[in-house]
Amino acid sequence: MPGQSRVEVCSRIEEVRGVVHQVRREGRVVALVPTMGALHAGHLKLIEEARSASDVVVVSIFVNPIQFGPTEDFRRYPRTWEADLELCRKGGAEVVFAPTVEVMYPAGSGSTFVEVPELSDRLEGASRPGHFRGVATVVLKLFQIVGPDRAFFGSKDYQQLQVIRRMVADLDVPVEIRAVSTVREPDGLAMSSRNRYLDADQRRASVVLSRALAQAILTVEQGETDAERVRQILRLTIESEPLARLDYAEVAEAGTLDPITRVGSGHPSVALLAVKVGPARLIDNALLPA
Amino acid sequence: MPGQSRVEVCSRIEEVRGVVHQVRREGRVVALVPTMGALHAGHLKLIEEARSASDVVVVSIFVNPIQFGPTEDFRRYPRTWEADLELCRKGGAEVVFAPTVEVMYPAGSGSTFVEVPELSDRLEGASRPGHFRGVATVVLKLFQIVGPDRAFFGSKDYQQLQVIRRMVADLDVPVEIRAVSTVREPDGLAMSSRNRYLDADQRRASVVLSRALAQAILTVEQGETDAERVRQILRLTIESEPLARLDYAEVAEAGTLDPITRVGSGHPSVALLAVKVGPARLIDNALLPA
Repeated sequence: MPGQSRVEVCSRIEEVRGVVHQVRREGRVVALVPTMGALHAGHLKLIEEARSASDVVVVSIFVNPIQFGPTEDFRRYPRTWEADLELCRKGGAEVVFAPTVEVMYPAGSGSTFVEVPELSDRLEGASRPGHFRGVATVVLKLFQIVGPDRAFFGSKDYQQLQVIRRMVADLDVPVEIRAVSTVREPDGLAMSSRNRYLDADQRRASVVLSRALAQAILTVEQGETDAERVRQILRLTIESEPLARLDYAEVAEAGTLDPITRVGSGHPSVALLAVKVGPARLIDNALLPA
Repeated sequence: MPGQSRVEVCSRIEEVRGVVHQVRREGRVVALVPTMGALHAGHLKLIEEARSASDVVVVSIFVNPIQFGPTEDFRRYPRTWEADLELCRKGGAEVVFAPTVEVMYPAGSGSTFVEVPELSDRLEGASRPGHFRGVATVVLKLFQIVGPDRAFFGSKDYQQLQVIRRMVADLDVPVEIRAVSTVREPDGLAMSSRNRYLDADQRRASVVLSRALAQAILTVEQGETDAERVRQILRLTIESEPLARLDYAEVAEAGTLDPITRVGSGHPSVALLAVKVGPARLIDNALLPA
């Protein structure tokens, strides 16, 4: 029963495989929620949706070094183990898989990579070279280790979601991918583990991302079809906030993330933002009216 | 019973998944023998070894376009469907998975690749850019589609075997890899689907590969420890055959395929050859005394 269940913590590959193998032999459906810990209400929603759609929920907690660039925040990425476990319990997860780096990348390993080049070199991939290679590789590993029927990912990391969908389709990985909508703070800021990096002023300034996206949606609703004009609105809104520094503002085809020239006209498109606010690099996105 | 069993032919992914899923639910062990068809006595041995070590043998037959270079022999690669089926039956395979290119790479797919760069850029990879990316990708796909307990590969394709072993270990793919020793013609020529390309004179000339490897082994047995001297013996032997054109002759560490300077002294090493004879590019290899 959610909120009261015991959570079984596995740190070794054979352990989690054994548990899941047994569960699947009993004909029960297993869901995986891959996370890097520092869990928040967005993760809770992932776990709860996984819980309601499956018999057994496995949450993986692993801060994956190979998806961080050399100057990025791997070392200082928040680790909040006790609170994470409590949130997994609250969400109704039965199993937490929390391997060490040595378990995931033992000495002599780590020379195989999964690449989705078409989707990986732009946007987040342009700002973070190698990021999606690291993401695709660790997600494939987690799927091979856990062997779930389905896996749940948040929509805030929109490009990551597309990379994973593409990888799973292209490689025939027998895991169903489900996207869960972004959970937001009352003022609109998308939940993120990196919001912890923000001081009070920066936290207030960070609402500019969701405000810019809302502005873009409104503009398209009011009839704007020029994608470049929508990008400009995103840029101008971000630039109106002194504490925010724009990394990119893009309007792209929703599946391929190809840049587009016209929005609406029946083609699904998405607005994507990456913005630095103080020590944090924040991303957000919104589907635009088709 | 080998030689008399019926073979179930699946061409769709859901079909072969359904069959294997049922078999594994019954607790039976499934082996996969991935092939490109044009089966010969080497493949028969793979199937027979798989048969004797497992409950159910699946043979995949798929000429994988993405492991061929643009100037290579994808189009003229031999297709011998009826004889292949008969050989699968003879070896005791229960299932043949024979997908079309459209099933393996449907429109809009094919943008994800598995890369093992450290092992893939040298030797065969240097002569055939992209070859091992194509091999690793299709083998991972076959493992995801079929979901076997173990898979059997021939040792003639030595570098391929190392690439697959590394991929499976690095990505935690739950498939056990077994190597089967090379089957040879009475004169020593390694069995290969590409031997069909040879006319009578070329066929006689092709024995030079196994003769060169035998010479290398003999030299090491007689006390030679200089790897460059062993390479020279390989080269000189190949060059003694007018119909043969050397592509490479290497002596390398057996696991990493790093070039070495000294053979023996307890470190496993391997001699590898690629030689063109008429229209065929032939490869062979031999472990050297450690």
